Amino acid sequence: MGRESVEPKGVSQAVLGRLPVYLSYLKSQPLHFDASISATTIASALNMGEVQVRKDLAAVSGGGKPKVGYAASELINDLEDFLGYRNSEDAVVVGAGKLGLALLGYNGFIEYGFNIVAAFDANESIVSKSSDEKPIFHISKFDDLCRRMRIRIGIITVPAAAAQSVCDMMINSGILAIMNFAPTHLRVPENIALNNQNIAADLAILRKRLTEKISGEK
Amino acid sequence: MGRESVEPKGVSQAVLGRLPVYLSYLKSQPLHFDASISATTIASALNMGEVQVRKDLAAVSGGGKPKVGYAASELINDLEDFLGYRNSEDAVVVGAGKLGLALLGYNGFIEYGFNIVAAFDANESIVSKSSDEKPIFHISKFDDLCRRMRIRIGIITVPAAAAQSVCDMMINSGILAIMNFAPTHLRVPENIALNNQNIAADLAILRKRLTEKISGEK
Repeated sequence: MGRESVEPKGVSQAVLGRLPVYLSYLKSQPLHFDASISATTIASALNMGEVQVRKDLAAVSGGGKPKVGYAASELINDLEDFLGYRNSEDAVVVGAGKLGLALLGYNGFIEYGFNIVAAFDANESIVSKSSDEKPIFHISKFDDLCRRMRIRIGIITVPAAAAQSVCDMMINSGILAIMNFAPTHLRVPENIALNNQNIAADLAILRKRLTEKISGEK
Repeated sequence: MGRESVEPKGVSQAVLGRLPVYLSYLKSQPLHFDASISATTIASALNMGEVQVRKDLAAVSGGGKPKVGYAASELINDLEDFLGYRNSEDAVVVGAGKLGLALLGYNGFIEYGFNIVAAFDANESIVSKSSDEKPIFHISKFDDLCRRMRIRIGIITVPAAAAQSVCDMMINSGILAIMNFAPTHLRVPENIALNNQNIAADLAILRKRLTEKISGEK
């Protein structure tokens, strides 16, 4: 799909993090199929620097034309291709508490190329209750299922105290990328990709920004 | 509490984002109450630059001593104070689907100084079902409750198509900081603090990093 001229590697973490922002902005716009959109327009709508937006988009799409900008539908396609949203990859969740079950039951992952196939839990009483027809297995079945299905991505939604041992178990079962929702620091080998989610800490940062905005206005 | 010499403002978004990482690392360590820890040790454990860690910590704690480092318990205190984890602030959720209810029922927010007091939904059939003894109200009660309780922080967990109107409603009811889980771009005035959460996009970025790690090893 993506044009040959676009080099998929060498994009920094920071750029990667901004790409979904552009994409969700583009998709939120009522654009005609053949509409054009410029980096200037996108930068202004998102309160971002124009040079940065221009560079970021050039890294993933060869379709930008001087003074015209991008064909919006093409840019959306290129961003989705680059981010792998057209792929289909299975992932698993360990920890079938409220958050784990919310993730297991969320249908929106499909659009991003993910299918959460099952959740696992150490608590026997949770096991086998099906959530939206997706299975919850006992943790003892984790290794076998992950190896058979060649699962590469695991999501940790267990309490902090159990997170490191779940993380080690995932790596032992062949998982290569881990998204961690437990509010603790995990040790992983260098070849493992780790993403930490801490909604409560993000909320605290948001409050901090709010406080700064208020004191800045005084 | 925080020492007078520490200037609470002027900390960038990037620094703010790293502070919870230091904190969760420190708390995950089996440290004695009077243990010391150096920026070097922290940087090495987190695979971060030493200069950056040193600067970040100096911005929030005046307790660092040359060649000794920080008293670990004091540094934890200073980080928690700076991030406002000792505060207590009420917040609300709009959208009582699986994710909204998971957030409403999550006890871990308390440690970060937040109390999610209620969820709201437009669906009459969800309303009044109490989740973990916290109420779910009809959206028509939103304005009255937020004004009476002087709520400043709102969390959006509705589908993308409803998110902008919920966002506008929140701002009309006096909310100043919004955490948005809907996968869409929201327009907010400049005085409103907005944080976008997109777990599916973060998962796609994680997969992208995984792919780069694998191709980098070849």
